Amino acid sequence: MQTLEKTEPKLAELKTRLAEIRDIQSAASVLYWDQATYMPPGGAAARGRQLATLQQISHEKFTDSAIGQLLEDLRPYEESLPYDSTEASLIRITRRLYDRAVQVPAQFMAKFSRHRNECYGAWASSRPENNFAAVQPYLEKTLELSRELANFFPGYEHIADPLIDSSDYGMKASSVRSLFSQLREQLVPIVDAITSQPPADDSCLCQVFPEAQQIAFSHKVIEQLGYDLQRGRQDKTLHPFMTSFSIGDVRITTRVYENHLAQALFSSIHETGHAMYEQGISTEFEGTPLADGTSSGVHESQSRLWENLVGRSRGFWQFLYPQLQSVFPNQLGNISLEAFYRAINKVERSLIRTDADEVTYNLHVMLRFELELEMLEGKLAVRDLPAAWNERYKTDLGIVPASDSEGVMQDVHWYTDMIGGMFQGYTLGNLMSAQFFEAALKAHPEIPSQIEQGKFSTLHDWLKANIYQHGCKYTAAELIEQATGSPLSIDPFISYIKQKYGQLYAF
Amino acid sequence: MQTLEKTEPKLAELKTRLAEIRDIQSAASVLYWDQATYMPPGGAAARGRQLATLQQISHEKFTDSAIGQLLEDLRPYEESLPYDSTEASLIRITRRLYDRAVQVPAQFMAKFSRHRNECYGAWASSRPENNFAAVQPYLEKTLELSRELANFFPGYEHIADPLIDSSDYGMKASSVRSLFSQLREQLVPIVDAITSQPPADDSCLCQVFPEAQQIAFSHKVIEQLGYDLQRGRQDKTLHPFMTSFSIGDVRITTRVYENHLAQALFSSIHETGHAMYEQGISTEFEGTPLADGTSSGVHESQSRLWENLVGRSRGFWQFLYPQLQSVFPNQLGNISLEAFYRAINKVERSLIRTDADEVTYNLHVMLRFELELEMLEGKLAVRDLPAAWNERYKTDLGIVPASDSEGVMQDVHWYTDMIGGMFQGYTLGNLMSAQFFEAALKAHPEIPSQIEQGKFSTLHDWLKANIYQHGCKYTAAELIEQATGSPLSIDPFISYIKQKYGQLYAF
Repeated sequence: MQTLEKTEPKLAELKTRLAEIRDIQSAASVLYWDQATYMPPGGAAARGRQLATLQQISHEKFTDSAIGQLLEDLRPYEESLPYDSTEASLIRITRRLYDRAVQVPAQFMAKFSRHRNECYGAWASSRPENNFAAVQPYLEKTLELSRELANFFPGYEHIADPLIDSSDYGMKASSVRSLFSQLREQLVPIVDAITSQPPADDSCLCQVFPEAQQIAFSHKVIEQLGYDLQRGRQDKTLHPFMTSFSIGDVRITTRVYENHLAQALFSSIHETGHAMYEQGISTEFEGTPLADGTSSGVHESQSRLWENLVGRSRGFWQFLYPQLQSVFPNQLGNISLEAFYRAINKVERSLIRTDADEVTYNLHVMLRFELELEMLEGKLAVRDLPAAWNERYKTDLGIVPASDSEGVMQDVHWYTDMIGGMFQGYTLGNLMSAQFFEAALKAHPEIPSQIEQGKFSTLHDWLKANIYQHGCKYTAAELIEQATGSPLSIDPFISYIKQKYGQLYAF
Repeated sequence: MQTLEKTEPKLAELKTRLAEIRDIQSAASVLYWDQATYMPPGGAAARGRQLATLQQISHEKFTDSAIGQLLEDLRPYEESLPYDSTEASLIRITRRLYDRAVQVPAQFMAKFSRHRNECYGAWASSRPENNFAAVQPYLEKTLELSRELANFFPGYEHIADPLIDSSDYGMKASSVRSLFSQLREQLVPIVDAITSQPPADDSCLCQVFPEAQQIAFSHKVIEQLGYDLQRGRQDKTLHPFMTSFSIGDVRITTRVYENHLAQALFSSIHETGHAMYEQGISTEFEGTPLADGTSSGVHESQSRLWENLVGRSRGFWQFLYPQLQSVFPNQLGNISLEAFYRAINKVERSLIRTDADEVTYNLHVMLRFELELEMLEGKLAVRDLPAAWNERYKTDLGIVPASDSEGVMQDVHWYTDMIGGMFQGYTLGNLMSAQFFEAALKAHPEIPSQIEQGKFSTLHDWLKANIYQHGCKYTAAELIEQATGSPLSIDPFISYIKQKYGQLYAF
């Protein structure tokens, strides 16, 4: 073990370098947020260059061999500390990210960033025109670059593994496939049983709800849930997302459909779940790589826990429905709580993932995951993707999109990021959300009755203590094991679905 | 002269480096804009660090000796080109900025940036409480750092010269003082003559004008003037400003007083003048240091030309007043055009610079300029500044602020930037605005009658051709000489004031 005199300046230098890199990444996040909320059309070209430049500088600075040397020099110090001490964790997580980052040349990152920007532009203009052909060459390039990216990490079992690993560390195509096949086996009969019954009536949600009132109401809801608006805000966008510029500035965006109440309301709660995770990270981690969510799956578990396990529960609306009725007396004054509850939990075979109910949602995700793998494996060409997409919707969900706009072009992901590693987190998150919620209720059986009173702090505090505060100090697997006492399993989710929907539908 | 084969790669490398630096500076501008418009309070601490980091990186990259070497290597090429060719100008202006930047260590810039951020925070919280004592130590540090900054440029005639030079290249304390003393000599008797007469009645402006309608109206006005909102936007802020992230994304901010119509309306037109300058820069200059306004004075000449010479003219309101009356029929339906015109041109001895009329405005500026010089010279201590401020207001404007909030703490500049070089541009801009307008009218005598018809394109096109397109290729002195045929003079401004206000008041 080195002496403290040798260690301290090295640790300080590492932290200084990491803080600078964090600042650049946060700046890029602000530029991205602005692009998606307020930027005028004329700013697009320069913004693409600006984002690419910041990403390149951040990548160059992080992959500087001086950081590798500091990490090497700090290894004995790290080994002298408890695994979960802040400093050991900082060194460990930084090393993991560094080892990954040095595999990819900065120029490649910049090229990919520029391409993603162009591809997003092509998607945004061709989607309203239902013109997949216009975006196809961009997507082909995305596939090529995604494969190139994966190939910077030789020795993988499946070409998607390095891409999955970047957002859901520790998972592989094979482990995800195994979970997903168990899940499908359980889900398909439930979906069949439910959809063979008369559909729930959700016409009460499809009335005119003026935008300003929807925004004001969702604002009130997210504040009651515990989203700190002194350290966050909500703005309008095309495709809702959460973004963090520091632990003190975590923002969400939303979109409003004036003819459908569910969109703004549930997407606001969803993004609030993401935001409360980031707001709850220990401030000790500010300016370091520890101040992030630990995986895409764990992040999604928080958005889905608040959106679904809380936000679509009967108890939540026992509390909130009178408030909603008083905002929209003409639209909802004559709709009973039970009718409203059934409407927001309508299960149906539908086309749009983000609007899908909890039961069918994972079918949407799993088919995208498998299409990603097929494209990466070279078994599916981009030009054949729309047909393959439609075929899978027919097989898995029993319906076929009338157009690519509501089919293969509906999600932004492949068009603004990479092909591979983009979707598994959504279903992993659903599984985790039920497992975390079950553990929270085991520790605090009073949570459901508190939710009926509009009190969310016991649940929020449990999540902060067991998940949020840790940032990415623990892996998803460690966090799940510690917080719930078991490894990730499909059982809590299936049991939740059976219990909730067994009350709504006979099966 | 070098061969083209040797020159081209060097010029390309210079452009690549400059584009990267420009991207970082633009990112900092986005972060600043966000801080001033939408950032929640919790984001402040991290934002200060992020801005300091970006400024430090940009400074380090610009002062890289490789840029100095490229500029040296390109000197023969530059000398082989016409002075006003794009490439010669790029090399010349870059060299001027480089020679200046290398004088200042990056660490000093970062320290100053962090300090300015803290000082701004102290001002923002102590101003509503009228607590100069709370901000005094920050301002003392600002003075110390401003002097330190000036002293990186030894050999000056006056310690303010390097600071003035940074925003109004080519001007010195002595040349500004000389212009200002001529101006004061002319202005004081005019102000005396006007204010000895009964004041104009501006009560029609001091009614309740709902915010949303004010914003909608000012939006319509700035669009009619020629502000391209596909390449810009307007948002609310505390202290209005213009900022550019690229030639395709030039934004303004405004504030609305519901009990005073003039604030949002004229500050929107003012910032639009700045924005149209930046939007009119040749797109050939994008990503280079040429894509900026050439001096603070020339920039201000454009905001003031549109705000005052156009926006407070009788002809402009002949066109616009019926539209304004239709938006505010209860407030303005019974107010005649002439009464409204007199109200918006009321001359009075007042306390707030940004609200001051055209005639007294320069008295506000000149006293600040002289207080800056005295502080830099060590003749005035920061602790004595409020008393000195009040004394100068008594002498120059005949009134004394009741509190520091409406006295020495009213302007953000010293509290968010430096002491020195901050104010002369406002009055230089007023002088230039009249000189440019006179030249435009000489070339196109039809402009006044076009303004009465709501047609602004002839004037706008003349400004684009003679000023905007050139970015900072020419110095302010060169630009004025080329566009107007004479060096900067107080005569056009005095003649404009005498003609306009001679019609409104007898003198």
